[in-house]
Amino acid sequence: MSHDALKLVTIGGGSSYTPELIEGYIKRREQLPIKEIWLVDIEAGMEKLKIVGAMAQRMVKAAGLDWEVHLTLDRQAALKDADFVSTQFRVGRLPARIKDERIPNYYGLIGQETNGAGGIFKAFRTVPVILDIVADMKRLCPQAWLINFTNPSGMITEAIRTYGHWDRVIGLCNVPVMAMLSEPELIGKTLDQLTYKFAGIDHFHWHRVWDESGQEVTMTIIDKLFGDNDAGLPTNIFDVPFFKDQLAAMRMIPCGYHRYYYRQEEMTAHGLAEYRENKTRAQQVTQIEEELFELYRDPELDYKPKQLAERGGAHYSDAACEAIASIYRDKKTHMVVSTLNQGSVPDLPSDHVVEVSAQIGAAGAVPMAFGHFQPAERGWLQLMKNMELVIVEAAVTGDYGLALQAFTMNPLIPSGATAKRVLDELLIAHQAYLPQFADKIQALIAAGIMVQDTVAAELSEVTQVVSD
Amino acid sequence: MSHDALKLVTIGGGSSYTPELIEGYIKRREQLPIKEIWLVDIEAGMEKLKIVGAMAQRMVKAAGLDWEVHLTLDRQAALKDADFVSTQFRVGRLPARIKDERIPNYYGLIGQETNGAGGIFKAFRTVPVILDIVADMKRLCPQAWLINFTNPSGMITEAIRTYGHWDRVIGLCNVPVMAMLSEPELIGKTLDQLTYKFAGIDHFHWHRVWDESGQEVTMTIIDKLFGDNDAGLPTNIFDVPFFKDQLAAMRMIPCGYHRYYYRQEEMTAHGLAEYRENKTRAQQVTQIEEELFELYRDPELDYKPKQLAERGGAHYSDAACEAIASIYRDKKTHMVVSTLNQGSVPDLPSDHVVEVSAQIGAAGAVPMAFGHFQPAERGWLQLMKNMELVIVEAAVTGDYGLALQAFTMNPLIPSGATAKRVLDELLIAHQAYLPQFADKIQALIAAGIMVQDTVAAELSEVTQVVSD
Amino acid sequence: MSHDALKLVTIGGGSSYTPELIEGYIKRREQLPIKEIWLVDIEAGMEKLKIVGAMAQRMVKAAGLDWEVHLTLDRQAALKDADFVSTQFRVGRLPARIKDERIPNYYGLIGQETNGAGGIFKAFRTVPVILDIVADMKRLCPQAWLINFTNPSGMITEAIRTYGHWDRVIGLCNVPVMAMLSEPELIGKTLDQLTYKFAGIDHFHWHRVWDESGQEVTMTIIDKLFGDNDAGLPTNIFDVPFFKDQLAAMRMIPCGYHRYYYRQEEMTAHGLAEYRENKTRAQQVTQIEEELFELYRDPELDYKPKQLAERGGAHYSDAACEAIASIYRDKKTHMVVSTLNQGSVPDLPSDHVVEVSAQIGAAGAVPMAFGHFQPAERGWLQLMKNMELVIVEAAVTGDYGLALQAFTMNPLIPSGATAKRVLDELLIAHQAYLPQFADKIQALIAAGIMVQDTVAAELSEVTQVVSD
Amino acid sequence: MSHDALKLVTIGGGSSYTPELIEGYIKRREQLPIKEIWLVDIEAGMEKLKIVGAMAQRMVKAAGLDWEVHLTLDRQAALKDADFVSTQFRVGRLPARIKDERIPNYYGLIGQETNGAGGIFKAFRTVPVILDIVADMKRLCPQAWLINFTNPSGMITEAIRTYGHWDRVIGLCNVPVMAMLSEPELIGKTLDQLTYKFAGIDHFHWHRVWDESGQEVTMTIIDKLFGDNDAGLPTNIFDVPFFKDQLAAMRMIPCGYHRYYYRQEEMTAHGLAEYRENKTRAQQVTQIEEELFELYRDPELDYKPKQLAERGGAHYSDAACEAIASIYRDKKTHMVVSTLNQGSVPDLPSDHVVEVSAQIGAAGAVPMAFGHFQPAERGWLQLMKNMELVIVEAAVTGDYGLALQAFTMNPLIPSGATAKRVLDELLIAHQAYLPQFADKIQALIAAGIMVQDTVAAELSEVTQVVSD
Repeated sequence: MSHDALKLVTIGGGSSYTPELIEGYIKRREQLPIKEIWLVDIEAGMEKLKIVGAMAQRMVKAAGLDWEVHLTLDRQAALKDADFVSTQFRVGRLPARIKDERIPNYYGLIGQETNGAGGIFKAFRTVPVILDIVADMKRLCPQAWLINFTNPSGMITEAIRTYGHWDRVIGLCNVPVMAMLSEPELIGKTLDQLTYKFAGIDHFHWHRVWDESGQEVTMTIIDKLFGDNDAGLPTNIFDVPFFKDQLAAMRMIPCGYHRYYYRQEEMTAHGLAEYRENKTRAQQVTQIEEELFELYRDPELDYKPKQLAERGGAHYSDAACEAIASIYRDKKTHMVVSTLNQGSVPDLPSDHVVEVSAQIGAAGAVPMAFGHFQPAERGWLQLMKNMELVIVEAAVTGDYGLALQAFTMNPLIPSGATAKRVLDELLIAHQAYLPQFADKIQALIAAGIMVQDTVAAELSEVTQVVSD
Repeated sequence: MSHDALKLVTIGGGSSYTPELIEGYIKRREQLPIKEIWLVDIEAGMEKLKIVGAMAQRMVKAAGLDWEVHLTLDRQAALKDADFVSTQFRVGRLPARIKDERIPNYYGLIGQETNGAGGIFKAFRTVPVILDIVADMKRLCPQAWLINFTNPSGMITEAIRTYGHWDRVIGLCNVPVMAMLSEPELIGKTLDQLTYKFAGIDHFHWHRVWDESGQEVTMTIIDKLFGDNDAGLPTNIFDVPFFKDQLAAMRMIPCGYHRYYYRQEEMTAHGLAEYRENKTRAQQVTQIEEELFELYRDPELDYKPKQLAERGGAHYSDAACEAIASIYRDKKTHMVVSTLNQGSVPDLPSDHVVEVSAQIGAAGAVPMAFGHFQPAERGWLQLMKNMELVIVEAAVTGDYGLALQAFTMNPLIPSGATAKRVLDELLIAHQAYLPQFADKIQALIAAGIMVQDTVAAELSEVTQVVSD
Repeated sequence: MSHDALKLVTIGGGSSYTPELIEGYIKRREQLPIKEIWLVDIEAGMEKLKIVGAMAQRMVKAAGLDWEVHLTLDRQAALKDADFVSTQFRVGRLPARIKDERIPNYYGLIGQETNGAGGIFKAFRTVPVILDIVADMKRLCPQAWLINFTNPSGMITEAIRTYGHWDRVIGLCNVPVMAMLSEPELIGKTLDQLTYKFAGIDHFHWHRVWDESGQEVTMTIIDKLFGDNDAGLPTNIFDVPFFKDQLAAMRMIPCGYHRYYYRQEEMTAHGLAEYRENKTRAQQVTQIEEELFELYRDPELDYKPKQLAERGGAHYSDAACEAIASIYRDKKTHMVVSTLNQGSVPDLPSDHVVEVSAQIGAAGAVPMAFGHFQPAERGWLQLMKNMELVIVEAAVTGDYGLALQAFTMNPLIPSGATAKRVLDELLIAHQAYLPQFADKIQALIAAGIMVQDTVAAELSEVTQVVSD
Repeated sequence: MSHDALKLVTIGGGSSYTPELIEGYIKRREQLPIKEIWLVDIEAGMEKLKIVGAMAQRMVKAAGLDWEVHLTLDRQAALKDADFVSTQFRVGRLPARIKDERIPNYYGLIGQETNGAGGIFKAFRTVPVILDIVADMKRLCPQAWLINFTNPSGMITEAIRTYGHWDRVIGLCNVPVMAMLSEPELIGKTLDQLTYKFAGIDHFHWHRVWDESGQEVTMTIIDKLFGDNDAGLPTNIFDVPFFKDQLAAMRMIPCGYHRYYYRQEEMTAHGLAEYRENKTRAQQVTQIEEELFELYRDPELDYKPKQLAERGGAHYSDAACEAIASIYRDKKTHMVVSTLNQGSVPDLPSDHVVEVSAQIGAAGAVPMAFGHFQPAERGWLQLMKNMELVIVEAAVTGDYGLALQAFTMNPLIPSGATAKRVLDELLIAHQAYLPQFADKIQALIAAGIMVQDTVAAELSEVTQVVSD
């Protein structure tokens, strides 16, 4: 970066996470010569944008900074000559997430934002929008970096590279961040005393750790971690322990989301209990969001309130700031990011996206080679990455057969008539955001398919791309 | 093969399939200069061996042949200087299979001979025995070919090559045979007018077909096949149709066993219905077996009775005879076999076993390159092959953590406490055949784990390696 | 193929090989319901086309067949609705080949038709023409098969698939044919008693052989072959023996062209001796050609004269006829062809062309998996295939830097100023056939580069695409 | 490392480079709590060890340090409980190197320490010795790190990992160090402003560079570098420029040793000129060494004399010190090292050694993924790495056929009778250090093969492992 007057743009600027982002920028004021921050949202998110945007302006002012904080619905004006673009939007807002959870739940399946049927549909809704943004960036800011933390972050990054043909992108996730925040003290170390090696794909990776004497401490951390089950897990993941015997064979630390795959029975039971209490995660989050925006409305509040940490996405925004600072200042920081494999995970194709330990600097992400996995993890990982490729292709093409293939492959969806029914209902429920599937959706409706879940139905009036 | 006085040995000679094998030899009397046929079994199988062995002798005599048919419990005498050894034994006989089915069923899971929890345990019981046989062969008949059709055939072949370090092995399966027997007439062709290309692993492969004008007829067959749902399916697979939309994306013909993975819901429901009626497949087979042996007892019967076709394994034995004749006469026949990959399925490791179209001749199996799969099938296949590797390693080492990894990976077993419970009960139920897991089993018993299923319990007196 | 009135087209129909091709068709009269044979050539080849075309017509008549034999300069009329198109043309005719030999020779380098600097330039001249033919075929006969035996056959096939995006192509070579014709009798066998496995790339492959008892006889053949040095070598390759110690480590049979790489010193010396006597291979062939056409002029001659066997390309045309018959009649013949790898040679990229044992039938070529090479052959092969890719890319793009990269990689061209000089002179010498390099050639000429070799200079008047 | 009283051992301690090593330790006195330095050599190197060892003791004393500096011929005593072992020995001393140069030169071939025939023989002599050292380390200091900078460093590291089964090894080379020392200022930058990515194998790698704004500056450096031909080249490489057109296609910076492969003609001519003047590099070095040891004898000299920089291996020892400090202090330094590939160079096997940018810390070397090469570099690299594997296997087994395969593959040795003659003479010339080839050597001598080169013959009295 040669600019010394940075223009930073955030798509989905009305998100409740924006104060964390602003705080992250303020913390790095010495590293980042910011001139303008543009918070972009859509019509439906205008109200939230105004609230959180005003708060962002108060935060900047309280920090004694002269940064301009623009609030706008004009994405193209925002992108013009941007240096860094971060994306944190949610197509369909929280109501769409509620459907992603409650429709599968209705049929006894896991309903989750980035996993199972819900995760597939979040990708279906988001991919067309992100490709649209990339098309704008090619025209308006071809030298900018895109820092994506819109979920499912790995698949979105895959779509950006493979279908958007845009290389200057880094995909982020807070899961590795939280592991590296919480694990060191479990074994009486600080983070800088340890060497971390992560590899896999977003929300489905493992890691190994060494201490400053070169001793591998992976199993020591496992022992501490799964005796102390609250350590390092995002608050949106229910905490059922892994089987010790399985971990002993694995000799790596799985990420929190592995619970859905390694303890499917318990995770399903937990999710269905929340469903029955009308308290799925999206419903909880809707409540948290309302409380947060209530706080943000306070014209005296000019710092990130501690309640924001209850949202599952904590640390995402800070990671985005760190990625921006690392690129701009060529810091060569170790971060775990979604980026092009290039051989670093040799069990996956080298020309697709993985999530891996990388050095982040001016040249972008340089992934660190992890080497081969043992057969068990290799098999899982190859299934999941190929499923991602099927999902992204279905999201781009609107091919129903591919969508069904993705549902069939997904380990959290038992194949068969119910799976197909859930697919069909989700298509109908989200039709406003799925132009690529429009013909199929019309055919389903004509054939009499209807969305069963009354909660979902109630929420169906919500429209368009909105920040979370 | 330079011998002109062949010694053929069958381990598990007391099997009800033996008449098909003998018939196969008789059909190929011009191709195979047989001198001796040795049918080997164990103490527990003596009675069956006597019955079916006597029938084999009658069949040979009726054909006007002077072949010696030896019945023996002395495996080493049989193997001494053998030319071809075929294996068709079932460790624990049908009672063990009943447990493989009913214990998972009890917990709501699919119970099946080669898939799910049951398939894993069939491998656990069989691998130690086959490695023992290979050790004998190295000493007693190092030039012999091993024709394996003991299930799970692919995993057994993998164990023979990877842990037995024995190259002269061909693994067989009747599923491709049945496809090639039934499909041509669906489209008004004969088999020799078509070009078949199969690839995958045993009981988890796909195929494509071209006609004699070079036109690909895969989709034509699919259209016929899944309008006419009885075509080409082994009788032991319940017939639920695949989703047309999925097949359209796949553009390959899946094998019958894919039903367990593509229609898991319906296959589970069907299996549990059989379970509740006390008619799981092993229980049906037990009945069929009794009827078959009743027939075989008839001193007038000197040909293969048509009732044998009702057993799911029809054509296995004939395929074995064809493989033997193809090797001995260097026929360069097209067969679909489990053999070393060598690149023919480039999405899987080249140094492990796949099931693939091959040319069978004196030099063994030369696999035909299939090329890359699309992502959906690639993901499935990589998961399943890696799971096989984990299962075989667990079978050899007795590592409980690996066994749990295999259960967790298996798409037919939702992970969690129930999965682990099923694993534990199966270990205890089969303890007589699982010396490699002895310590773990003792610990489980000490911890109070008990086998729940009363049917399984009743059958637990059965012992040792016996032909099916 | 559903047609029963075949239209066969040969580009470069005026070639001296045409009588072998016609003989091959006549031999297969029962298999091929031929209606029309079109022999196509260009203006400069008209005279030869008339002579050899008339002879072809006599041969057909003498065989009592009513096939139409058309002679034409109108390639598009010929290609219209063709069933099979075979290509045997030589861009620049024999005079161009003389330059390919004598210019490198002048600088002390090997001058050879398909290897070294000459082979690279034959590719540079031929690739644009073959891509033009493919473009015509897409319009005029999109269902036709292209049987290429224009050299360098492997690279031309690579260009057809990778840049022409045409799948219905089979590349042929006579080298494997000659090995399979001559080797069996060396060990007292017939071809059908043996199993051959070839793998590599065109003019750079190895093979292994097994007999009808399954014994590998590779080393036995090596022992016979390199005691009897005349066996199985095209007449255009000087016969210096391989080192026995090297063959013992290799445990495979190299092809004749490996002499250039394994005995570079002797092959160079031999080539330079021919150069000094003004008898390079192209010069010898020019003489043989003249004698052949003298024979062909004889209006009584209606069969292939035995003198044709002296040309190095014997058996090429017959192989083409056999490929056509194998496809048309779905014969599933074993042939060694240039086709898409698909994993059959796992040490090379699966999406590029290799030369490999394949089953040839209506569905085209199904390659047989060879498995991994040992490191020595793997290294050689990877170098040579990558060099092919560089050559073909340079031929398509006209990128001088890539041309220089190809020269630098080529093991027969020591890198440095002389190599670059040879590249530059060949560009100038062949400028009439290298439109893709036109700008660079003008720059070279402007910089005063001149072709040194007087023989080459004398021949420089020759123009355009002409049959050999 | 948990020790705080380090024992550092150097095999080949009598080397003229030892003062650089000692200086490197002294520079890092704050980072390394050294207690003992053991300089080990063999009988034949005793005199040099005493001289340079005394000087090392003076340097330590002059620095005011209380480190013990032990001089010994007892390797096992030295290795006992060592923390770091570095190796810088030369089997056969400089006289052996003179043979490696002059015997090939006599036959018109490049004679060079790590490339061509000489490089192969340096590996043949060194591999048995290094495996012997590793065997000692397994017994005496199983937790120690082996820092190898004995050449050919990549092949030696390969032997240590693949045949010695020793993982705690890092192979070093000064070529990347020199590039990173000299290139930044060419473009007005400092090293810490740049991101370097190297990949390949030792003495055959390429690199790309980015500046602190994320701009790739590779071509800018190329422009500066090959207009200013003295930049960044070890003094032992003659400086002929690369072809600009080739570099433009390559878009990477080749290492200095690529001159042998990209400008073979000029490098050969230069080497032969030195040969004729009796001034091959080894002969020059012998002179430099004598002068250095004359300096070292001065009891007043207690610092590294500037003349040492004239030796080609400058910076090797300092790199070794930096590697030791990086491991011990977990510095996570960027270094370019020979280490296990693990996917970082996806065009090469993941389980063999490559030379690549890596992060060096307590956990050893974590390689950074470079991604795929273009075909030209991919072909070269695959040839060269496979040649390394053949050389190392020949060095371990003493298989003459493999040695001949290696000679045939080597791009600097035209294959044929002369190549074989050079192989044979080098075997005889180095027989004292080639026990693995003893039988073959006796057979060659019996067959009357004699070493032609009189200079080599004169030097043949020299014996045993000696430091350089």
